[in-house]
Amino acid sequence: MAEIDILVSEVGPRDGLQSIDSIMSTDDKKKWIKAESEAGVREIEVGSFVRPDLLPQMADTAEIVQYAKSLPNLTVAALVPNFKGAKNAIDAGVDKMCLPLSVSETHSKANLNKSHEEVLAEIKKIAEYIKSLDEDKRPEFEGNLSTAFGCTLEGKVSEKVVVSLGAQMMELGCDEVGLSDTTGYANPIQIKRLIGLLKSEVGDHNLTSMHLHNTRGLGLANALASIDEGITTLDSSLGGIGGCPFAPGASGNIVTEDLVFMLDSMGLKTGINIEALIEVNKTVKTFLPNEELYGFTIDSGLPKGYSKGGWGTN
Amino acid sequence: MAEIDILVSEVGPRDGLQSIDSIMSTDDKKKWIKAESEAGVREIEVGSFVRPDLLPQMADTAEIVQYAKSLPNLTVAALVPNFKGAKNAIDAGVDKMCLPLSVSETHSKANLNKSHEEVLAEIKKIAEYIKSLDEDKRPEFEGNLSTAFGCTLEGKVSEKVVVSLGAQMMELGCDEVGLSDTTGYANPIQIKRLIGLLKSEVGDHNLTSMHLHNTRGLGLANALASIDEGITTLDSSLGGIGGCPFAPGASGNIVTEDLVFMLDSMGLKTGINIEALIEVNKTVKTFLPNEELYGFTIDSGLPKGYSKGGWGTN
Repeated sequence: MAEIDILVSEVGPRDGLQSIDSIMSTDDKKKWIKAESEAGVREIEVGSFVRPDLLPQMADTAEIVQYAKSLPNLTVAALVPNFKGAKNAIDAGVDKMCLPLSVSETHSKANLNKSHEEVLAEIKKIAEYIKSLDEDKRPEFEGNLSTAFGCTLEGKVSEKVVVSLGAQMMELGCDEVGLSDTTGYANPIQIKRLIGLLKSEVGDHNLTSMHLHNTRGLGLANALASIDEGITTLDSSLGGIGGCPFAPGASGNIVTEDLVFMLDSMGLKTGINIEALIEVNKTVKTFLPNEELYGFTIDSGLPKGYSKGGWGTN
Repeated sequence: MAEIDILVSEVGPRDGLQSIDSIMSTDDKKKWIKAESEAGVREIEVGSFVRPDLLPQMADTAEIVQYAKSLPNLTVAALVPNFKGAKNAIDAGVDKMCLPLSVSETHSKANLNKSHEEVLAEIKKIAEYIKSLDEDKRPEFEGNLSTAFGCTLEGKVSEKVVVSLGAQMMELGCDEVGLSDTTGYANPIQIKRLIGLLKSEVGDHNLTSMHLHNTRGLGLANALASIDEGITTLDSSLGGIGGCPFAPGASGNIVTEDLVFMLDSMGLKTGINIEALIEVNKTVKTFLPNEELYGFTIDSGLPKGYSKGGWGTN
């Protein structure tokens, strides 16, 4: 595969679908994932291994993982809230698992019904279990610091706590940590500062991914700030579907189409064909007739004379 | 007045109102400008000195200028398309005039019905007229390079032409030049490159302002890139009202509320009270019952525990 500069990690099938009332059929999910993979997206978080009575939208995640694993050149990721979810994810064959740890303990209790200590205990158990597996069965295991830039329940959070929790996750055996602006509170200065603080604790190569929401319209500015600080993986959601159902007031992820347009027009390689991606949006819209998809590039179209891979002078 | 880091120049009463069908009453315009000035906005482009048969929304600009001049601590700006408009603007008492020169000559002909040469001739005539006035009667005169990042009619434009036109405007007597992404085609890399190229031609202090549209969602990322390159004045429109009626497909300006939230949360001083600004949005909405105002911060509200002047750790 051609080299890329930025890995765009599509989280719509997980963060998007879990936040809406509509339940997408397993077949439609497969079509979405296949189409987006064919458009050049190299990592998709396809679902969440949670209790189906809590999130019925995610009940078919194991089947979706198995299907997605059949697609070439795709890293198949899933969210796991605890050891049980992680075991199911590994059984299903995921390439990568993300476990969210809310920096805001209030949010952690609302979201996972667990204190920091309890979540860290799950992480330890998962990391030990992964180590017990044959090497070729071991998925990548990311500990994700959610509400890292503020919480709709607690307000400001402590950057010291972010850094300390990140360090503990690495010590307990995570392969890497990621930062999430779950609530859309982050600003570019804060992004840069927190990346710097966390990297100096866990090492540059152990913090490469950022999960952003566009709640106050700053999503792409924050993505730019993240890239400036060496972040190479950015989460986004097709059509901006998404948000966290347990963080009241938090709206959707940054929009994949707008993010890819920004990166592509900047001359940063993503491996994604923006025109094909726009077609995927049109398809997914038909799968979610009762939901509003949004995006600026989708509405406006590409610039006149736009050709993939950079926009500048003529 | 307290010092500021970034001057937010409200262009809604001009770029916003000229692009919509509704005609706001003179009284409502005055209320809007007064309320926004009281919220701390220090520069407002209050209208355009164009032929009222072409843009009836702008027919009362002279009266609006005279009113706005009575407000304390406000730079009253207006757009002028030609010498005649400039003379009317000066008679009305503007503090600042912007004359747009479309880098795309096709757009220039569609927008002003003039070639580059003809627009430059108007600029020369205006600059000479200003010099003939008593010093205390001379407004600031900015030459604005519109469609500087691409044109919906021509596609890519030449950066060499941007720089050359900028240099010519300065030679002909403009006090400064500004860059406009009229069509929402710009990306952060392009923004940085073009600012650098133009500054090296006209000097750092003669390029301080940027006019951005949010057509493809990149508006605030482009604002951030502009600030990184030393831009200190950013145009924006309350509620994102606006766009250029002569550039098909171009949608509105960046949203004042979102821009101010970004700057304020980054700890950059704008002099604007974000909470008061949100109230202005609610008021202006009642003046434009048939138009859609938009903005992320307006929809989501401020972060929990937000206090003016920076957001970070607790």
